[in-house]
Amino acid sequence: MSEYDYQQLDEVIHSRIRLAVMSILAGVESAEFTYLRDRTGATDGNLGAHLRKLEEARYVAVEKRFEDRKPVTRYSLTDRGREAFRRYVDRLESMISGNEKGVEP
Amino acid sequence: MSEYDYQQLDEVIHSRIRLAVMSILAGVESAEFTYLRDRTGATDGNLGAHLRKLEEARYVAVEKRFEDRKPVTRYSLTDRGREAFRRYVDRLESMISGNEKGVEP
Repeated sequence: MSEYDYQQLDEVIHSRIRLAVMSILAGVESAEFTYLRDRTGATDGNLGAHLRKLEEARYVAVEKRFEDRKPVTRYSLTDRGREAFRRYVDRLESMISGNEKGVEP
Repeated sequence: MSEYDYQQLDEVIHSRIRLAVMSILAGVESAEFTYLRDRTGATDGNLGAHLRKLEEARYVAVEKRFEDRKPVTRYSLTDRGREAFRRYVDRLESMISGNEKGVEP
């Protein structure tokens, strides 16, 4: 497999909003919907759709609960999501740094 | 601007095939269409469409010439494309590594 084979990049992660969400969640235990929205700059509807796609892939788990009597929705990476993100970043870095600079035949 | 703002990532570059092409071209003076196709694993039609988008953004220049009496199409990054790729990689790395791990409020 060439390090430039585009299909090596997980297309579930490789969308700008989903990549931003996965990057945030990789660094925290969990995050609220509003926090994700504010940090990514996505609209509610757009973010919701991308979060559903991450849930469907079982990369992200969602928990709804009450905090101070207010409903709060928290998202976190699953083990599967954490592993997929790690693999994605490895392959991405391999692609953008390249291993064969200057040897194009 | 948050480092997780998804719109900071150049959407012209951030498609898997275009990112693979830009990554290859960043490391060489120029590359033939067939070389790009073989390394990225894209089909002719798909690669052609993505290359046109990169040309339209003036990130990639195309040169058609004859080599050994055979027509050859070579692609290279423009200065503008090289600069856009450098900026894209900086922002991508800032996003995936994060600067605020563990401080989600």
